[in-house]
Amino acid sequence: MAAHITMGPGREFDAVRALLRVWGDAAAGIGDDGAVLDVPAGSRLVVSTDATVEDVHFRHGWLTPREIGWRATMAALSDLAAMGAAPLGVLLALTVPARWREALEELARGIGEAAAHAGAAIVGGDVTDGDRLALAITALGHAARPLSRSGARPGDTLYVTGVLGGPGAALAAWERGAAPRDGDRARFAHPEARIAAGRWLAAHGAHAAIDLSDGLAGDVAHLAAASGVRCVVQLASIPTLAAHDVHDVLVSGEEYELLVAAPPLDTDAFREANAGLALTAIGRVEESAEAKGEVAGELDGKRVPIPGAAFDHFAPS
Amino acid sequence: MAAHITMGPGREFDAVRALLRVWGDAAAGIGDDGAVLDVPAGSRLVVSTDATVEDVHFRHGWLTPREIGWRATMAALSDLAAMGAAPLGVLLALTVPARWREALEELARGIGEAAAHAGAAIVGGDVTDGDRLALAITALGHAARPLSRSGARPGDTLYVTGVLGGPGAALAAWERGAAPRDGDRARFAHPEARIAAGRWLAAHGAHAAIDLSDGLAGDVAHLAAASGVRCVVQLASIPTLAAHDVHDVLVSGEEYELLVAAPPLDTDAFREANAGLALTAIGRVEESAEAKGEVAGELDGKRVPIPGAAFDHFAPS
Repeated sequence: MAAHITMGPGREFDAVRALLRVWGDAAAGIGDDGAVLDVPAGSRLVVSTDATVEDVHFRHGWLTPREIGWRATMAALSDLAAMGAAPLGVLLALTVPARWREALEELARGIGEAAAHAGAAIVGGDVTDGDRLALAITALGHAARPLSRSGARPGDTLYVTGVLGGPGAALAAWERGAAPRDGDRARFAHPEARIAAGRWLAAHGAHAAIDLSDGLAGDVAHLAAASGVRCVVQLASIPTLAAHDVHDVLVSGEEYELLVAAPPLDTDAFREANAGLALTAIGRVEESAEAKGEVAGELDGKRVPIPGAAFDHFAPS
Repeated sequence: MAAHITMGPGREFDAVRALLRVWGDAAAGIGDDGAVLDVPAGSRLVVSTDATVEDVHFRHGWLTPREIGWRATMAALSDLAAMGAAPLGVLLALTVPARWREALEELARGIGEAAAHAGAAIVGGDVTDGDRLALAITALGHAARPLSRSGARPGDTLYVTGVLGGPGAALAAWERGAAPRDGDRARFAHPEARIAAGRWLAAHGAHAAIDLSDGLAGDVAHLAAASGVRCVVQLASIPTLAAHDVHDVLVSGEEYELLVAAPPLDTDAFREANAGLALTAIGRVEESAEAKGEVAGELDGKRVPIPGAAFDHFAPS
């Protein structure tokens, strides 16, 4: 890790200095124009940018600043997990309105904890004023053979990691002015990017993966479209938190679990290697007559429609 | 370059598809969770994030959407120039309010033109709703031996590329409600990241570099602080556009020219290799008694103060 660079005067730099105090050794080389990293020989660079914006992805009062920082960082790192990549570092572009200035240290603490948990250094950043809190986070990682959305093949099994439905239920509760159940709230506030799981899946022959940031219904459609295949989802097989309706679960976004297309996998070995995390078969991949892919549901042996409601940041509210 | 990935339905994805139509082959692999790039063997990865925000970095009506896109992209790429790095790609996190939706294609055109001009692919992005137009751009590049701010040594000469003062004069005119002169406006609206210049300087033994995004006075202070040296600037040597006062030029930020500390360089050879771009000696590096560095000005053989006014996004407006 590079040493921190001494910065000149100014209140912007004071803000950055406050962040660096929180991050300590988790931050590397911030203060130079750019940061320098090494990609291991034989590995390819994997990069992704993800933005978390107040009033788009969360509302004031739902989450503590520390949870906002954690969640935004894990959301960015989740893209690396879906590619089967190991994290190298994250870069932040923070928009911090005056009313959020006092929360900056706690926000930074959440960012730092999530990055450290995933093994990513904080390698750069930019802080500007604005009207809404926004965290645009670029995650850098590496993988010898990155997974993509487009590799699913007819005959593959569809799997998901973990249990679904918590974030959608928490959002639904907040939206109707109620307090979410603790378990649902925790799933929204404190997601874990499935980094180790993604690497295990890539190493064990997975053909394609995507994270469930748009919800299972939307993301299975993305995977089917990218791969030009038909994805058949058995609704009764979807692993859900207790008391959640499967139709709600299908459109529960912000999950940060992984959807994977692969030849048959040893789910017990997966669970053992991934601290008890479940890997559940939920469907299969078939040939599609449509170049843009298809999605179908099955329940009690019958075909049922899958709602195509990916969360859309541009939809009228 | 990876093929584009087919995306599922939704208005957000329609927006991304509109961007991809504008970018054509300049965009690589957008639509997957992340993009995959290769860093050439023997090179190190250089990364930087830079945000351009409406009402912080520009106001509505100053620039066309195409100029906003160009300028934001060049601002991000300028950090690579200062590190002596060759661009690999850029990732975008765009915040696009409803009133800017119609301008999105022209904005994308400016981004695409700047990236292509610098030899960078567009490798990722995220588009969200918000109150102000904001472009957070992460630039990825590579260099065998990246330059930093901290390498200046006593005995070095200080150089700047190009001529300074245009952006500051344009901003001053806009702020008092006047139209800037064409030359000043062009310098603000259509900057060029000094990519080739930065690589030439790194290859010819430069010890340290920084871009002038905060203005010469502020950035020479950053370089002095990072290197623990005294920087002496001869005010009469600073290359300026005609009729600009040197004190205004010192605080003219958003320049995207480079300040370099190096052993004596062949400025004619630099100019020849860089399409006529000037490289001008403006001072020298000395030992500093202060660990945090010092800056001094010289005019007519006398020491004069240098205003320390780096542009500060957190200063009260």
